[in-house]
Amino acid sequence: MSAGHTAVTTPARGTPVVDCSTPREECAVRDVLDRLGDRWSVYVIVELSAGLRRFKELQRAIPGDISQRMLTLTVRRLERDGLVRRTVYPTVPPRVEYELTETGHSFTHLVRALADWSTAHRPAIAAAREAWDAAADDARRHPDPPGRGARTS
Amino acid sequence: MSAGHTAVTTPARGTPVVDCSTPREECAVRDVLDRLGDRWSVYVIVELSAGLRRFKELQRAIPGDISQRMLTLTVRRLERDGLVRRTVYPTVPPRVEYELTETGHSFTHLVRALADWSTAHRPAIAAAREAWDAAADDARRHPDPPGRGARTS
Repeated sequence: MSAGHTAVTTPARGTPVVDCSTPREECAVRDVLDRLGDRWSVYVIVELSAGLRRFKELQRAIPGDISQRMLTLTVRRLERDGLVRRTVYPTVPPRVEYELTETGHSFTHLVRALADWSTAHRPAIAAAREAWDAAADDARRHPDPPGRGARTS
Repeated sequence: MSAGHTAVTTPARGTPVVDCSTPREECAVRDVLDRLGDRWSVYVIVELSAGLRRFKELQRAIPGDISQRMLTLTVRRLERDGLVRRTVYPTVPPRVEYELTETGHSFTHLVRALADWSTAHRPAIAAAREAWDAAADDARRHPDPPGRGARTS
């Protein structure tokens, strides 16, 4: 819409990409946001997308320093959700390996799509931020003239 | 891998779906996780995917009670990032409308993909949790016999 667009009384109506007004859809979005909001889980899934890993290998590969306790909790949660499979081999000491299940692998496609989107749009977002900050600076230096708007500071 | 799989010395190596060991890729994932971690942003984008909205319409449509202040901060952040466009019409009182930019629209495809994944895998995840909890219960009632493993509680 251009700046010269004449005022409309009723905004255009359409169907949201996800209908968050129904509990089912709203919860679907919330579930996956909860999962993505836990970045350790995402990093574990990303690392396991390359193949199976032992605990120490996982710990070393994850960016940022994840504690042993946090990694234990993270893989346990992923195992409980059926995204990660833990296999214990009866050696001395026992050998423990982690790998993605089919559900876990399917999640990696989303993570790839998210990273691709982020990489593709990073320049546009950086440019938008710069323009916005410059305009905000300008507004601070030249407050709106009286009558143009309610905000004068 | 089946339970009878013989122990391997070197885990299978491959390429992770995202190479989080490079700062560029790791940051791409982190950027988008930050955005998704802010669920108000996601709800605003979902609502605007249906078309332009006035402030009060947005506030009413978003699931959960978002305060006026939080919604103001959320749309301002999205505007600064170039995902949302805010248009002010010089009426009395001024009419303010929000809509997605092209970048914002591109993000809605990700949200749709996330919701679809969540909906598709919800039964499997629920079943995995149930099985895991039942096994944990069972392990509590029947501790490992001595010698089978280190954990006996």
